[in-house]
Amino acid sequence: MMHIAILTFQGFNELDSLVALGVLNRIKKPGWRVTLCCPEPEVTSMNGVTVRAQSSLEEAHSAEAVIVGSGLQTREIVSRPELMARLQLDPSRQLIAAQCSGTLVLARLGLLGAVPACTDLTTKPWVQEAGVEVLNQPFHAVGNVATAGGCLASPYLAAWIIARTEGIDAAASALHYVAPVGEKEQFVANALKNITPYLPSCWPSSR
Amino acid sequence: MMHIAILTFQGFNELDSLVALGVLNRIKKPGWRVTLCCPEPEVTSMNGVTVRAQSSLEEAHSAEAVIVGSGLQTREIVSRPELMARLQLDPSRQLIAAQCSGTLVLARLGLLGAVPACTDLTTKPWVQEAGVEVLNQPFHAVGNVATAGGCLASPYLAAWIIARTEGIDAAASALHYVAPVGEKEQFVANALKNITPYLPSCWPSSR
Repeated sequence: MMHIAILTFQGFNELDSLVALGVLNRIKKPGWRVTLCCPEPEVTSMNGVTVRAQSSLEEAHSAEAVIVGSGLQTREIVSRPELMARLQLDPSRQLIAAQCSGTLVLARLGLLGAVPACTDLTTKPWVQEAGVEVLNQPFHAVGNVATAGGCLASPYLAAWIIARTEGIDAAASALHYVAPVGEKEQFVANALKNITPYLPSCWPSSR
Repeated sequence: MMHIAILTFQGFNELDSLVALGVLNRIKKPGWRVTLCCPEPEVTSMNGVTVRAQSSLEEAHSAEAVIVGSGLQTREIVSRPELMARLQLDPSRQLIAAQCSGTLVLARLGLLGAVPACTDLTTKPWVQEAGVEVLNQPFHAVGNVATAGGCLASPYLAAWIIARTEGIDAAASALHYVAPVGEKEQFVANALKNITPYLPSCWPSSR
């Protein structure tokens, strides 16, 4: 089983949750499961799009990988202890990735430690206030914890999860599928340039 | 009023509908309205994500702009005369844009005429069978009809609609917001390179 839970809260950014979901679902194998993981049965995006949850927040605890999505209400979310307590994430046994303001959630959960991180330009001061250095780049990872900044860095986050679990060739193939026609090679090359420095060097190129 | 209806059917591709929706919603002005426009009150994506419709298919007729999204069931959709009859699109008074397999819908509605178009690699043979030449590029437009190929060409389609209605500076600003951190300038430049050849040359750079 490989369950990837994409944490998606009220006021979520559609790009951050759903681009990752689309890229991750390019892996077609039994037991590979990608879900919108929400605190309620339905959540409504920052632009009024209502989606149904595919897993509950408590299921993130047992997922093999977790992406913390972004949205308008992240500052409210990190200030609600009962909601934060429902997030039992453990980078020693899970891949943990955060997109844009999701980085603030990881910072407040103490999962970033002294490691610098990526986030969007709006969230940047809040992440800095939480004591984390913010990088001017789209993707960064140390060990099992990755962060990305800018909505359309979400394919990099998804590709990192695929590369870590299925190998770099599978990641390149998923990226190739979603890339614009006529720009596929340059898109894949640029994405891999962003994530390969953060992959274990002993990782096999494919399984 | 500026209503942009994003046609989103059962089996839809999340990236194609929701990336465009996210980029278009960067325009914050009264009367600017972007909706998921569906044949039913709820539709479920190719990867099992259920979303609520924000407008009905019949409302596309009166929208100022229409994006035909993509998905797994486009070939079934174009073979259903009662569904196709609900799509009353008119490029003489609407901006019409199609993403990936959405191009097949435009081809079958006779809206492409002898003009070449963009689509994804999977849909390509079906669009060709409908008598339309398929280009190896992410974006193309003639007059009020545009097509894009590859999920992540959807920001180009959205930017074209913004450029045509709010000007090129507004389009660049929306693209800049969604672009990956550290890659924003190159992303915007590449996107504008793809769409500016298809904008009216007399168009003002901003309003």
